[in-house]
Amino acid sequence: MTVSDRWLLPDGVDELLPPNARVVEQLRRRLLDNISNWGYELISPPMIEFLESLLTGTGNDLNLQTLKVTDQLSGRLMGIRADITPQAARIDAHSLREQGVTRLCYADAVIHARPAHLLTNRCPIQIGCELFGEASLAADVEVISLMLNTLNLAGLEKVHVDLAHVGIYRGLISEAGFERDTELAIFDAIRRKSIPELEELLSGDVGNAAVAKMLLQLTNASGGIEAIKNIKSIVTGASKDVLNAVEQLESIIDQLQQRYPNIELGFDFCELRGYNYHTGLVFAAYYPGYGHAVAKGGRYDAIGKEFGSERSATGFSADLKILAMLASPDGIENKKGILAPFSDDITLWDAIDRLRQTEKVVQSLSVESDSNDAAQLGCDRELVKESDTWVVKPI
Amino acid sequence: MTVSDRWLLPDGVDELLPPNARVVEQLRRRLLDNISNWGYELISPPMIEFLESLLTGTGNDLNLQTLKVTDQLSGRLMGIRADITPQAARIDAHSLREQGVTRLCYADAVIHARPAHLLTNRCPIQIGCELFGEASLAADVEVISLMLNTLNLAGLEKVHVDLAHVGIYRGLISEAGFERDTELAIFDAIRRKSIPELEELLSGDVGNAAVAKMLLQLTNASGGIEAIKNIKSIVTGASKDVLNAVEQLESIIDQLQQRYPNIELGFDFCELRGYNYHTGLVFAAYYPGYGHAVAKGGRYDAIGKEFGSERSATGFSADLKILAMLASPDGIENKKGILAPFSDDITLWDAIDRLRQTEKVVQSLSVESDSNDAAQLGCDRELVKESDTWVVKPI
Repeated sequence: MTVSDRWLLPDGVDELLPPNARVVEQLRRRLLDNISNWGYELISPPMIEFLESLLTGTGNDLNLQTLKVTDQLSGRLMGIRADITPQAARIDAHSLREQGVTRLCYADAVIHARPAHLLTNRCPIQIGCELFGEASLAADVEVISLMLNTLNLAGLEKVHVDLAHVGIYRGLISEAGFERDTELAIFDAIRRKSIPELEELLSGDVGNAAVAKMLLQLTNASGGIEAIKNIKSIVTGASKDVLNAVEQLESIIDQLQQRYPNIELGFDFCELRGYNYHTGLVFAAYYPGYGHAVAKGGRYDAIGKEFGSERSATGFSADLKILAMLASPDGIENKKGILAPFSDDITLWDAIDRLRQTEKVVQSLSVESDSNDAAQLGCDRELVKESDTWVVKPI
Repeated sequence: MTVSDRWLLPDGVDELLPPNARVVEQLRRRLLDNISNWGYELISPPMIEFLESLLTGTGNDLNLQTLKVTDQLSGRLMGIRADITPQAARIDAHSLREQGVTRLCYADAVIHARPAHLLTNRCPIQIGCELFGEASLAADVEVISLMLNTLNLAGLEKVHVDLAHVGIYRGLISEAGFERDTELAIFDAIRRKSIPELEELLSGDVGNAAVAKMLLQLTNASGGIEAIKNIKSIVTGASKDVLNAVEQLESIIDQLQQRYPNIELGFDFCELRGYNYHTGLVFAAYYPGYGHAVAKGGRYDAIGKEFGSERSATGFSADLKILAMLASPDGIENKKGILAPFSDDITLWDAIDRLRQTEKVVQSLSVESDSNDAAQLGCDRELVKESDTWVVKPI
């Protein structure tokens, strides 16, 4: 192994070097300040927690994504967080215990044991918000609006939003009355939209035949804004829960279109991401040219119960690094500096000290290094002494 | 175990809740912006790396502090970083490979397997800077100045700085010509300032008797600014390396006193923190009422060699959470918001959207929740409709 190879980072692990680290930092500040202007308060949960805290109320996907270590102090298993959302839910239900609505936001590193997709980063910076204590659709509308607003501020315009509602599938499958094994097989086939498998599973004497037909039709119902009409006709006669779910989707569309007249909406009724975790409306935002969601979120009303306080909950999150990568680069502030010479003249030190309140001042560390490398140090001006006074001059 | 106990965090692991998270965030921005005004460029190395990258050139202390996990993709051992400095050295020597001086800074989470001291946080946010490529004292002076400037900006005035130089002990011990076992025992006893043990180890026929006497006297030489005179008389006749080290300390004192006339300096010639890692001047800053160093750093010239490029290096770092805890609380910006009513009036949405460019606007999510909880939501004004226009009014 050559020296050059030995220090390679693990696959899917990246580092932010200059000037990219600064670009990400600037985006982080801009987005957090905006989220804070929506009334969301910043939290910073720890990188490590006892595993059961990190995984409570979540599904097996998160378990597989979470690196585990033994706590040397307690002997208990700790996880390195792969998602901040369950931490926010714990903080809402257990640490803050507020009455009424609680709005929280965060922007911190998480670690994924494996890349979520091929070539995906295992060290995202998860930025997002969570809204607790409001069961009505107003909360979903606020969170989706804030997601769109965040993406827009990051320079991602023309975002496409996919909506789904786990209540449709959940209502149908519980109404259908299948055996547990069949249910799991159907769940798996629906996610993969495998129509032949579904046809086999749902044919014959398998409980409620009308509902079986509805489940089969789900795979064809997804699409653009017209899909909401398709799903309405498919689930005619289904249980109240299913009809409620469809009604919620319809209402969300109206409200989003009112706020964002040009919004592109789509529907995927087979989208069962985080099915054991989500409880209602789920959504994901897509950006042209990037193959995966750039932000996603949804309802997870049940999770707080485990933490001691049952609270309605919804939120969204995104990977700040992906947003920075996709963002148009015109937002990069490139602050040019002033080069100060090498000298132990105390008046120079005072001059530098004063300038640094507002300016970037790089001081040479030896006589030889003076000014010849100003460009490399990002300086376009220099500090020179003229009749006992230090003045800034262009180089 | 009650619900209340079950979600306790591991010992030494804390979370930042509102409003503390915001205070830390504000301090982070202020300090990073200032460090950047000194010409240091931001990097953000990953939380995880292959273990050998994280531990190269460092001592056993860091190894014990580093949590380890197996990389599921490569089967190799990864570490969760306990220190960003070796990552910065790798980036300088391997990723950037610049000629001349490279200045880097960072502010990111690290994880310690065990608390560094009793009751110390295991999840610090390490903020600091590293200066590569300059062997002269000018680099040490710049880094110590930046440390003092950073602490000052964080609201920590009256900081006491302890200086030491590993070259003094290193020069003496190599000149003394002890057996390896004796050397290790002396190292251990010196760190603990155990005079009886040292007397026993250094008496009798143990190599260079004059040097043995100097080593024994080190334990009594530490103290305030006068200690530099003591050490000069103790090491009279020692090797050139030792005399150089003392000269460097003298020169640093002059330069620091010129810049900071009121600075309190101290010397600890038995301070051998990071002895296998540091190569020259080391320093630590103390703040009245806090029992451990609030910031520390020093020379580690050798580390880059392993990463493919031998570079002079010095830097300092601090735990942002400790700085925020000790900082005077007058710097907390508490932005009051505007409460907007629950309504699907599209003119309200436009009004809110416009206000949020600069203001914090919290919208009620149901009719019942209007205005009665304005204080809890941090609002001191409200948005009301007056003759078809939304206006901001005091509550």
